Amino acid sequence: MKVIKVKDYEEMSQVAVQILLGYMYKDGRVNLSITGGTTPKRMYEILIPYVKDKKQFENVHYYNFDEIPFKEENREGVTISGLRKLFLTPANIKEENIHILDQFNYEVKDEMIKKDGGLDCILLGLGWDGHFCGNLPHTTRFGDGTVRVNCDEKLKERLIDEFDDPKDIPDYYITMGPRSIMQAKNLVMIASGTKKADAVKHLISGEVNENYPATLLTLHPNFTLIIDEDAASLL
Amino acid sequence: MKVIKVKDYEEMSQVAVQILLGYMYKDGRVNLSITGGTTPKRMYEILIPYVKDKKQFENVHYYNFDEIPFKEENREGVTISGLRKLFLTPANIKEENIHILDQFNYEVKDEMIKKDGGLDCILLGLGWDGHFCGNLPHTTRFGDGTVRVNCDEKLKERLIDEFDDPKDIPDYYITMGPRSIMQAKNLVMIASGTKKADAVKHLISGEVNENYPATLLTLHPNFTLIIDEDAASLL
Amino acid sequence: MKVIKVKDYEEMSQVAVQILLGYMYKDGRVNLSITGGTTPKRMYEILIPYVKDKKQFENVHYYNFDEIPFKEENREGVTISGLRKLFLTPANIKEENIHILDQFNYEVKDEMIKKDGGLDCILLGLGWDGHFCGNLPHTTRFGDGTVRVNCDEKLKERLIDEFDDPKDIPDYYITMGPRSIMQAKNLVMIASGTKKADAVKHLISGEVNENYPATLLTLHPNFTLIIDEDAASLL
Amino acid sequence: MKVIKVKDYEEMSQVAVQILLGYMYKDGRVNLSITGGTTPKRMYEILIPYVKDKKQFENVHYYNFDEIPFKEENREGVTISGLRKLFLTPANIKEENIHILDQFNYEVKDEMIKKDGGLDCILLGLGWDGHFCGNLPHTTRFGDGTVRVNCDEKLKERLIDEFDDPKDIPDYYITMGPRSIMQAKNLVMIASGTKKADAVKHLISGEVNENYPATLLTLHPNFTLIIDEDAASLL
Repeated sequence: MKVIKVKDYEEMSQVAVQILLGYMYKDGRVNLSITGGTTPKRMYEILIPYVKDKKQFENVHYYNFDEIPFKEENREGVTISGLRKLFLTPANIKEENIHILDQFNYEVKDEMIKKDGGLDCILLGLGWDGHFCGNLPHTTRFGDGTVRVNCDEKLKERLIDEFDDPKDIPDYYITMGPRSIMQAKNLVMIASGTKKADAVKHLISGEVNENYPATLLTLHPNFTLIIDEDAASLL
Repeated sequence: MKVIKVKDYEEMSQVAVQILLGYMYKDGRVNLSITGGTTPKRMYEILIPYVKDKKQFENVHYYNFDEIPFKEENREGVTISGLRKLFLTPANIKEENIHILDQFNYEVKDEMIKKDGGLDCILLGLGWDGHFCGNLPHTTRFGDGTVRVNCDEKLKERLIDEFDDPKDIPDYYITMGPRSIMQAKNLVMIASGTKKADAVKHLISGEVNENYPATLLTLHPNFTLIIDEDAASLL
Repeated sequence: MKVIKVKDYEEMSQVAVQILLGYMYKDGRVNLSITGGTTPKRMYEILIPYVKDKKQFENVHYYNFDEIPFKEENREGVTISGLRKLFLTPANIKEENIHILDQFNYEVKDEMIKKDGGLDCILLGLGWDGHFCGNLPHTTRFGDGTVRVNCDEKLKERLIDEFDDPKDIPDYYITMGPRSIMQAKNLVMIASGTKKADAVKHLISGEVNENYPATLLTLHPNFTLIIDEDAASLL
Repeated sequence: MKVIKVKDYEEMSQVAVQILLGYMYKDGRVNLSITGGTTPKRMYEILIPYVKDKKQFENVHYYNFDEIPFKEENREGVTISGLRKLFLTPANIKEENIHILDQFNYEVKDEMIKKDGGLDCILLGLGWDGHFCGNLPHTTRFGDGTVRVNCDEKLKERLIDEFDDPKDIPDYYITMGPRSIMQAKNLVMIASGTKKADAVKHLISGEVNENYPATLLTLHPNFTLIIDEDAASLL
């Protein structure tokens, strides 16, 4: 585990961009799985002008690592829609370089990624409760690959913020599990703000257990954690 | 996880030799951590003539990953003594290429290995109870690095076979923990015989938990498991 | 450059097998380009039983690096026919794992190999005149990729031994050029016998020039040369 | 060869920074060899604030790849002095992370670098005459490692610009040769401006010969060339 402590959200975003670009400049196919949500917002803002319409990145392929479908399933899910808006569309990424995980292919997705040569890097956020991707505490086990997680009422409540209309909240969502994430060649996690400080404390403490799922990732041989001062405030 | 099913102990030994040699032929320094015990006996028999006095392997360094000291601590411990007898001495490995983990350096060993460039490969055996190195169930946690494990009476009983004289049984032993092992670039595990079949079943089942410590290793991005037909008999 | 000096042809063959197997055990797709001719004969004899019908090598793909077509072009060329006889057929390699270079695809072959993820290892022989693949002195330049080499009478004479019927000798042959070979991740060259001693001397001398095309390969960051005592007799 | 065409000097500098940072964020020791001169000036300006006093780069070590000693040899040479001024001093790089090549150690430098684990990346400039490092046309051969180049009057003239006082011009200089440079894991070359356009044309043409020494580098399996529109103007 390499821990990079930075000053603030801005520097965290910049360092994340630099690390991602490092993988993207590789010759030959590069497979990245990238996170949506609010934490990477500034990162994508910085990244987009470096990537948009640049021939040198035609070899880079993008994968979403979880998906919350709309209940009606008549449109793309919350994660990929969010990634399109945040990054894929403003960066003009070609459709053939976008590899969607959804409720229709999740059972074969791990095998598909392996055939594509595996993921070179996954960029992940960290939840205040220690979750990563859709691996909320006690929804998946360390041994799980990409799975469908059924939502009880409590889980549905946590999804409310993702939807304008609560009728769209689905009965399940899809996520790459701990096993799938650990297969990547490199993992990079970003965390910013005091709301993440408790989860960060658990990551750094050395413990590894399913109450804080992201603690597992600290065991990956190439795991980089980027935290700002607020996220590091409980260390 | 790559699972290689072979016919018998002889073929398992041969495949393990081939995989080890693959790492050893690399140019530049190569760091290997290798297992003692009975499982690798034939493997070392096959390996020794390929390695003994061969200039092309002068770049290979060897590390033990656990150590059971003699109670009196007036001589080298059980693990390194065993490795010397099995392999290091008959293969004429130079003393400067042997890097001993023991009760005197275990607290700084993880850092030392990192400075040496990290381990290219660890070759591990599998215990019938799912242990690896000295990580017997409930002696270490997934988050532990290289540690000292204090022996209660039950643990001391399990050490009896390692000693000619029970008065030599120590009050503690040393082991690289799950965290240390997961930092290696590649892991190779060998298992032979029906006695290992139950542990192998747990490894393949997809579960990952501290009751069967080796299940964690299946999450490593470069984990190879070599099992013979007997070890695979419960799959 | 890593030079491995061995006793004789038998040991050279064995070491080459061990190095090849090292690459083949990798998880995920492995791309190998392998040599025909007489030098690797014993190597393939040793290799075949380790590979034949082994599930663990289903991820290994094979490429020929040159081709001498029959003049009539109504059957597969000399190189791939030879490789089939020496190795691919007795080892039961599936047709989908065999990637043929020939007169019909040589112009796009470098691009095809790049799309396949590049070559993990090329195993090459060494000509008495310092040639490798079809890169005889003054037939190709260091900067050439995969090319068609037109045969003058002198070149045709050198091809006589490859054909039962001299009427089959073609007007040209195909070879991966120095540029294509240098793009591989690893290069392994084998040389045995006093007939190769002069070429080996040039390789070790430090010179790099087109009179001895193989001298270029000594500049590759991962080049391993395996030579027996006879081949090393002029050093 | 990966060719990255950018708009201008500013973008070339930025892309070079991004590629360098990509290597620098690696966990474990990273060895970089970096260029002095005028081309990388803006690159270092951009790089310095990202690197200065950053704990995450304590694992990065720096190497100069050539050296022009002062005739009197009573102070550090031109190259390392220049690198200090351009980058090492303003970025507060610790002395223990600076590995100097000079007239006193050049004969053992290739071996020293190998012991350090090899160079992860060399960042090179391109001369208008196709030279790289101190490998001016016909001063070194492709097969040369790190060498001392004796200066005739013509070569001394070319060194004039490097010295305030012509009495300081030495009788020889030191350079890593083509063989040493090719041993690095990755090569990155930057070229900006119409003065470099002819040399760039030769690099892209596919030829490889000692009249344009840098043409050799296009054969390295991981060679990236960054050129701006002016440098690409003859393509």
